Amino acid sequence: MKFCSECASPVSLRVPEGDNLPRFICDRCGTVHYQNPNMVAGCIAEWQDRILLCKRSIEPRSGLWTLPAGFMENGETTVEAAARETREEACAEVTDLKLYGLFNLPHINQVYLMFRGQLVDGKAAAGPESEEVGLYRREEIPWEQLAFPVIRETLELYYDDDARTDHVVYISDLRRTADRRIEIRRHLKNDDR
Amino acid sequence: MKFCSECASPVSLRVPEGDNLPRFICDRCGTVHYQNPNMVAGCIAEWQDRILLCKRSIEPRSGLWTLPAGFMENGETTVEAAARETREEACAEVTDLKLYGLFNLPHINQVYLMFRGQLVDGKAAAGPESEEVGLYRREEIPWEQLAFPVIRETLELYYDDDARTDHVVYISDLRRTADRRIEIRRHLKNDDR
Repeated sequence: MKFCSECASPVSLRVPEGDNLPRFICDRCGTVHYQNPNMVAGCIAEWQDRILLCKRSIEPRSGLWTLPAGFMENGETTVEAAARETREEACAEVTDLKLYGLFNLPHINQVYLMFRGQLVDGKAAAGPESEEVGLYRREEIPWEQLAFPVIRETLELYYDDDARTDHVVYISDLRRTADRRIEIRRHLKNDDR
Repeated sequence: MKFCSECASPVSLRVPEGDNLPRFICDRCGTVHYQNPNMVAGCIAEWQDRILLCKRSIEPRSGLWTLPAGFMENGETTVEAAARETREEACAEVTDLKLYGLFNLPHINQVYLMFRGQLVDGKAAAGPESEEVGLYRREEIPWEQLAFPVIRETLELYYDDDARTDHVVYISDLRRTADRRIEIRRHLKNDDR
């Protein structure tokens, strides 16, 4: 950020009075421009013993596989965002969405909220951001061609949880280490104790 | 938003190629300025049969009571954000945070993530944004002086849930209606079915 989006004057990075973190502040009109994490909402859409995966046709990670997921928009709820992304990326409708996992990615300022739901009629087709979509059984998941670490984490938790009880919400933190590996810290599930 | 934060040229609100929603786009450099919902993280900090409440000393709703909560910062996880807000607003440390509720406020583009945790040593004191803080029993909650509808909703769910099992995550949508009331839709808890 270089200029104020309200008055076009240069901004400086400094700590506002009464705050404790540097923010971009307009040198002329004084507007403070906060920058905050983004939410990504996505979906494990189930159909019988299969789940819906999408092969990305856009960057980043074009040609690799993902669960339908994307940035939440203003004016919608998290459940609506997960359903919309599933509709946009896989032309598919989902019902009965329940929160499945919350994944913190602090190194890229993102929080993923992954829901689990039922694919309606088993119908799906590639949307504009997908090269192809398909319904996969556990043994058919393309583990070596997944687009993002958070997708692998979601699927590993999903398949490790044989009971797959409805009330569990998983929370994991995924951080990039200095040598660019992704380090995963799994918090206790909400029903562990 | 009136000007591009990268090059200071005017922006227009239009739908980018391949998108389906209007965005602020720079007329000169073409940068698309997305606007997305903000996350608020907060905490029900328990001490014996009491919970921690803060009387706000800042606007909005100065003089009214709230749970410690605030906007998540870049570079932190949701649990870290909830603990930091509790530290800042009530000089209090919390442990064992578990996700308790997810509240969608689409009319103001916010998602609240409320955690439940244990107050360490029962210690708390007013931080710079609080006029006073205190530990309250159920019958002492100042229901008529709560700062925000989402705080009332969190506390109502909390006290309606006698079992207060560890594995429940509540999800509610709070929307402002045309006549400026707040309409609440409670989704099934994650363990209902």
